[in-house]
Amino acid sequence: MNIRLFFTPAGIGEEQINGRTAVVIDILRATTVAAVALGNGAREIIPVTNLGDATSLREKLDRSAVQLGGEREGQKVDGFDLGNSPFEYGPDAVENKTVILATTNGSAAILKGGEAKYCLSCAFVNLTATLEKILEIKDDISVICAGNKGGFSLEDALCGGMLVDKLLASGGNMELDNDAAFVSQGLYHKHRDNLEEALHKSDHGKYLDSLGFSNDVSFCAQKDSLSICPVWQSGRLTLLE
Amino acid sequence: MNIRLFFTPAGIGEEQINGRTAVVIDILRATTVAAVALGNGAREIIPVTNLGDATSLREKLDRSAVQLGGEREGQKVDGFDLGNSPFEYGPDAVENKTVILATTNGSAAILKGGEAKYCLSCAFVNLTATLEKILEIKDDISVICAGNKGGFSLEDALCGGMLVDKLLASGGNMELDNDAAFVSQGLYHKHRDNLEEALHKSDHGKYLDSLGFSNDVSFCAQKDSLSICPVWQSGRLTLLE
Repeated sequence: MNIRLFFTPAGIGEEQINGRTAVVIDILRATTVAAVALGNGAREIIPVTNLGDATSLREKLDRSAVQLGGEREGQKVDGFDLGNSPFEYGPDAVENKTVILATTNGSAAILKGGEAKYCLSCAFVNLTATLEKILEIKDDISVICAGNKGGFSLEDALCGGMLVDKLLASGGNMELDNDAAFVSQGLYHKHRDNLEEALHKSDHGKYLDSLGFSNDVSFCAQKDSLSICPVWQSGRLTLLE
Repeated sequence: MNIRLFFTPAGIGEEQINGRTAVVIDILRATTVAAVALGNGAREIIPVTNLGDATSLREKLDRSAVQLGGEREGQKVDGFDLGNSPFEYGPDAVENKTVILATTNGSAAILKGGEAKYCLSCAFVNLTATLEKILEIKDDISVICAGNKGGFSLEDALCGGMLVDKLLASGGNMELDNDAAFVSQGLYHKHRDNLEEALHKSDHGKYLDSLGFSNDVSFCAQKDSLSICPVWQSGRLTLLE
């Protein structure tokens, strides 16, 4: 299995994802929220990058079966049903609902991953489930970190590095195909014993802490609290295949 | 001094460079070539991203006083005077000449850096000279790694990390302002005893080795062989201020 990793979706050309499985990571907080929402019974997650498009889409759907969630600058958007905290996506809020998710970095990354042959949504909370799905599919993979405002983010690189590390340890024939894949593994090795601390010290972790979302940051550092892997299908993330 | 670092120029907004000194790094090979060419007496380096623009510019200048250099896919471009190997930029080729430099990643990074208040061109070959210039200017800095085809490149991150490390050790009041600055320093610590080997193992180093440019890669890993720092002024890199 050939493994590439990208610290941001910017500059990822077709040749980097064609015929491959994309694995999208936005730890703080979109792919964590995606796993939590689907784990709590949401029917599907539709990622949207533009706030106006998100609101328009809600109007086209059955209002009682949809929740519009997301953030700008980390905060819930005026008129939205939910923000971007995993604690808002409990069964009462999302069971059997379509979730429209409009986040700054994560939605764009998921849509980029959706251009690949197959696309999975990964976070620390569902890392092992994602790993198992990757090993089942057996495609070459392109790990796409969402990053932060177009740039590198530590938390996504750490999760990507953990995934790379576990893939290399899985016993299969694995090959790291770019500098970023190699570097992410080293970064994970450096911080693996204090991932939660590293997340709180990251740029976006500090920002979320400053907004009062410290519990979110700690939650997003939890490994394997969910044994599900959201997959991309026809413009949405779902557990159904 | 506030220090930010970017692994690629993509996504760098005005707010990331306004009022700051940009330090551009493209180890393999544009900023190494820039230092070598100016060190060997070139009058100025004009970076251009588009091959057609580069050729047009040559036609507008005194043919006897200009050298058109650069690469596509690492190779010299048909009709260009020079490729992108530092060994081509000796005094015989460049003394008192204007060098138009059209490279894939480096030219775009230098032009992005040129939007800042002040812009310096840095490589391993002139790292200490760049460090001294930064400490003289005393601005906050934004280190801009050129990267490789829009993505992360190990060699640029290592040089950025070395610069960060030396700045932190300089005794001034230094603050690392983003995840990438912090990560680059750790990366440098990991590889500082074998930088040349790390460059040969990087994506672009391996590619250049495969083209027969191994000597270039080794040369680009040499530290402080030149005690000059190219500065950006009116659309060109020069040693004059």
